Amino acid sequence: MTSVGFPDLTPTERYKLLCATVVPRPIALVTSVDPDGVANAAPISFYNVFSEDPAWIVLGLQHRPGRVAKDTSRNIAETGVFVVNAVDEDLAQAMNVCAIDFPPDRDETAEAGLTLLPGTDVAAPRIAEAPFALECRRVMAIAPGPGREIVIGEVVRLHAREGLLDLTRMRIDAEAYRPVGRLFGNGYARQNDRFDLERETFADWEARRAR
Amino acid sequence: MTSVGFPDLTPTERYKLLCATVVPRPIALVTSVDPDGVANAAPISFYNVFSEDPAWIVLGLQHRPGRVAKDTSRNIAETGVFVVNAVDEDLAQAMNVCAIDFPPDRDETAEAGLTLLPGTDVAAPRIAEAPFALECRRVMAIAPGPGREIVIGEVVRLHAREGLLDLTRMRIDAEAYRPVGRLFGNGYARQNDRFDLERETFADWEARRAR
Repeated sequence: MTSVGFPDLTPTERYKLLCATVVPRPIALVTSVDPDGVANAAPISFYNVFSEDPAWIVLGLQHRPGRVAKDTSRNIAETGVFVVNAVDEDLAQAMNVCAIDFPPDRDETAEAGLTLLPGTDVAAPRIAEAPFALECRRVMAIAPGPGREIVIGEVVRLHAREGLLDLTRMRIDAEAYRPVGRLFGNGYARQNDRFDLERETFADWEARRAR
Repeated sequence: MTSVGFPDLTPTERYKLLCATVVPRPIALVTSVDPDGVANAAPISFYNVFSEDPAWIVLGLQHRPGRVAKDTSRNIAETGVFVVNAVDEDLAQAMNVCAIDFPPDRDETAEAGLTLLPGTDVAAPRIAEAPFALECRRVMAIAPGPGREIVIGEVVRLHAREGLLDLTRMRIDAEAYRPVGRLFGNGYARQNDRFDLERETFADWEARRAR
């Protein structure tokens, strides 16, 4: 085994090692809006769901060099709302355009050829082409250090592309949904090489071992 | 589009929808130890990295039915430390054994045929077979509701299986590392169907569009 103490590393080295080992990460294409109505979209892979009661997702937002908050952070702080758009194989190229450092007055989604729709329960827009969109209200933000902000959001509504969500059984069509996972550097992965692992109860485990 | 308001759903319905849409999730096989030295291991996919300065990872730990904290939560609260072991294709079956609801006095890693090694900087053990292990100290915990705990941990040391980490260049061998991602239900995905997306600067984007 090779081993390295984190206090001996620079933040950039820690970032490289953590991004390369904690994979695959889900991707949130976060849409938000400033008080003047200018929309913004940015992909974030420091992201996951953490609770269902209340329904909480968490975003890790990086500030710009110089420790200035990016548009997404500023918009969420000022409006209190945002939308997490899921990224599938069809949306990957447009997601990557949204990662470009456009000036604040340029709407990434327009540059990427995406269509914005108004939110139902929040003032932030969502992306029409996304397989799923989670409308969120800001619960709180934590500042681990000067370079980042961690935002906790409560999910208030889910939108699903036609055919992906069966509301009568509250089931998502896992075969039709083609999400993309984030790896390290420029790397991404399709999720079609799937396998199942059946979870046993302790009683079943004991019974099987006793046979 | 189909759309559903989260206040109208039960927590179980919200859990199903969030787990099925926020994918793929990285898997933390969390090892911890109680004050008597009994080790515990549990897989958690409400997990990600959120900051590099400080180096923070976050875990979403579910309580047992009856809202009693599970061994992992209790051990982290009592000892203040834990280890996140990464899960690759070779470790997936053993990870699934660790998901069985063994009684507190049974060590999941022994049942799964895994080898525990002592931590270097923390009192919690790590799994020898894991491709990577992140030794962590508890920073704080947040309780979104009675059924869950969100634990923030600071990474203090990284262990890598021989050949996976080049310390001179601080680079991880992304080809040799075969992580597994968590999907919904019993579903998992290998990460070998990869593609690259080159990130452009705004200046490059403008120059390319002007041509």
